[in-house]
Amino acid sequence: MDRRTFSHTLTVASLGLTLRRPRAQGRDWRSWRINGERVNRFLADLSQYGRTPEGGVSRTGFSDADVAGRDFAVGLMREAGLDVRIDATGNILGRREGGLPDARPILFGSHIDSVPNGGNYDGDVGSMASIEVAHTLAERQYRNRRPLVVTIWSDEERGSFGAKGFVGNLSRDELRRPRADGMSLAEHLPRIGGDPDQIAATAAASGSIEAYVELHVEQGGYLDRAGIPIGIVEGIVGIHHYFVTITGVPNHAGTTPMDQRHNALLAASELVMAVDDIVRSEPGRQVGTVGRLRVSPNAPNVVPGEVTLTVELRDLSTQKIEGLWQRIESRGREIASRYGTTFTAEPGVMGDPAMTDPAIRRIIEEVVGDLGLAGQRMPSGAGHDAQELARIGPMGMIFVPSVDGVSHSPREFTRPEDVENGANVLLQTVLRLDQR
Amino acid sequence: MDRRTFSHTLTVASLGLTLRRPRAQGRDWRSWRINGERVNRFLADLSQYGRTPEGGVSRTGFSDADVAGRDFAVGLMREAGLDVRIDATGNILGRREGGLPDARPILFGSHIDSVPNGGNYDGDVGSMASIEVAHTLAERQYRNRRPLVVTIWSDEERGSFGAKGFVGNLSRDELRRPRADGMSLAEHLPRIGGDPDQIAATAAASGSIEAYVELHVEQGGYLDRAGIPIGIVEGIVGIHHYFVTITGVPNHAGTTPMDQRHNALLAASELVMAVDDIVRSEPGRQVGTVGRLRVSPNAPNVVPGEVTLTVELRDLSTQKIEGLWQRIESRGREIASRYGTTFTAEPGVMGDPAMTDPAIRRIIEEVVGDLGLAGQRMPSGAGHDAQELARIGPMGMIFVPSVDGVSHSPREFTRPEDVENGANVLLQTVLRLDQR
Repeated sequence: MDRRTFSHTLTVASLGLTLRRPRAQGRDWRSWRINGERVNRFLADLSQYGRTPEGGVSRTGFSDADVAGRDFAVGLMREAGLDVRIDATGNILGRREGGLPDARPILFGSHIDSVPNGGNYDGDVGSMASIEVAHTLAERQYRNRRPLVVTIWSDEERGSFGAKGFVGNLSRDELRRPRADGMSLAEHLPRIGGDPDQIAATAAASGSIEAYVELHVEQGGYLDRAGIPIGIVEGIVGIHHYFVTITGVPNHAGTTPMDQRHNALLAASELVMAVDDIVRSEPGRQVGTVGRLRVSPNAPNVVPGEVTLTVELRDLSTQKIEGLWQRIESRGREIASRYGTTFTAEPGVMGDPAMTDPAIRRIIEEVVGDLGLAGQRMPSGAGHDAQELARIGPMGMIFVPSVDGVSHSPREFTRPEDVENGANVLLQTVLRLDQR
Repeated sequence: MDRRTFSHTLTVASLGLTLRRPRAQGRDWRSWRINGERVNRFLADLSQYGRTPEGGVSRTGFSDADVAGRDFAVGLMREAGLDVRIDATGNILGRREGGLPDARPILFGSHIDSVPNGGNYDGDVGSMASIEVAHTLAERQYRNRRPLVVTIWSDEERGSFGAKGFVGNLSRDELRRPRADGMSLAEHLPRIGGDPDQIAATAAASGSIEAYVELHVEQGGYLDRAGIPIGIVEGIVGIHHYFVTITGVPNHAGTTPMDQRHNALLAASELVMAVDDIVRSEPGRQVGTVGRLRVSPNAPNVVPGEVTLTVELRDLSTQKIEGLWQRIESRGREIASRYGTTFTAEPGVMGDPAMTDPAIRRIIEEVVGDLGLAGQRMPSGAGHDAQELARIGPMGMIFVPSVDGVSHSPREFTRPEDVENGANVLLQTVLRLDQR
């Protein structure tokens, strides 16, 4: 269904539903705020499930802690009057029916699974804030026009598998391949109420949602350092991986004179520094990292004969990523030849950027302004469920600060007032999307 | 016994043994030459034991191939009229009795064990040339004044364990500790005729040998590149290892802006290059190598939080090694702090330099000149059995070229004419030491 068709449907539907749309809704919803104390209590309560001695949480997807945490979330959703069901990929969907028949739903949510030994904010803030929005709407007896659906996506940390299933982007291989624990996603799903055989048939079609909005902690240190409470996400960066091999000659570290070496590690070291130089040399928020580097034979008394390393580049622009890589590749060849070594590279996992919807971005910006908060447009350097949802409809994301930029760690922290601000931005964004 | 006492003994002994010392020996021994065809045949025959498909050899200490190769060597030594015995550490000692009673023996030899998938020259050249010298002396019916002992040291490649046992430098730990194959040296030794319980009691005392001379392939590419057939070893370099840790902060490679990273691998890369710079910045033959480097957590999408690496420095001068290390350490601290990381270092395995005896060095140089060969003084960058023998008496070493400097590889090669030249230098050096 394209926009024009939808507008037509809306008009017709509105005419038949006058009685169910309370005229009294008026404009006072613009003054509504969530309960900051309550949303932070939801967060604290959720942190009990999978708590670690360090004060963080290990609530990996499908673990006992995940199952218990999900039950807790379902309980909160039911308290808010949501009609809760588990879909085929184990996503928790809590629906508040709308007044407009056949209207496309507005989805908002995040995830509550964590990395091993992770923290209490990544995913949890957006999930608990979405449930808090539902509680606020219930208390206000809001008569939403469109269906509003709070979504807790399953198994995000290993690669947004719940969201992938929802949008029909889960391959048979991803579903059936054994994971590190020896079990496949398909084998895990029944534990949380999923049904692998129904995923393909029940996937949401492109154009079937009105919008998806996700509140999330930044996970980087930009907002915290700048003292800005809200980030308006321009998009989720594309990620390109390149696998580089530098081949020299392994040789005796005692008998090989300095000027007769073909030292792969010297060439690799200069390349590691060049990647940093090149990525920093252009304006913008792009990042580039050599995160994995392996030396062969890696013995104290042998001149390194081979080094393999990964170059990861992230940016909102695929063109920019490719331009940086061209410069890195060319510099890599020049460096390698200078050390009497050879350079080869292969592209690996690639992910395209997912841009947020300009209209939703503008609504978030208006909300931030109306709430008297400072906001900053920025890319998301990390992947999120939202990038899967962007495949089927307009998507927006709201960031709140991570103190010191720490994430995936028990030290992960977002201040209660920032959680409250973020939840209020979410509330008002959802309301405006419903009312537009 | 010190030198003066020895001279006295010699004089007295000579008087009583006039009849056993053939006056006819005269000076014609200076014209004797080994049989170049034969020594190269010995090498080719030895290469059968443990031959690999690549044409190299896997004859690691105590393997079936090593046992068979040792039997082959013992047979050659007996053919040369040597009185062969196996000592407590499994060394093969082939003795040609001398005319002077109580004279200290002149030892010469090397080893025939190899690294896994090694070559046919490392150790083998010196061992077969020493046996060839014994054959030549037998053919010439040479009446040596001092005992001459051809020595095939056991288990050199794992750390000169045979030579260490011979000189009484083998710790209980080295003897009893399980190795990679799960068996200790003590458990292996009986297989080659050794007796671990007798090692300490039968070790050679300091001052008990007249000299030890070892012919060996250079293993580096200096002589081959310079076109010089003989190296006169000034000493075996000291080896210092330093274990460096650079600690930064592991962080999300997508969400951590470039200017907020504490990237341990960037600091380590600059240090790797600095080690190379500093070592090259001073004149001399010192070498310095970062051979082992490990990154943590070593994932493509995580900014490296920690790098551990080894710095190995080798030189004939301990003072020079320590001076280089001071510069590296100071530079390391400066680099680490520039990247917001920390630098720590611990000294590891240390080996002191072992200098060759100046008198033996001069004799080798005279021999090289008399044979019309070019020779070059040089350090040995690799460790050898000779450095253990230097603990108990005067030691000298002769190098022959390794083509392209390749060693510990099936591609290891020393030309037949270079083997012949080396064996002739060894023959004449032994003769001059016996006659002096």
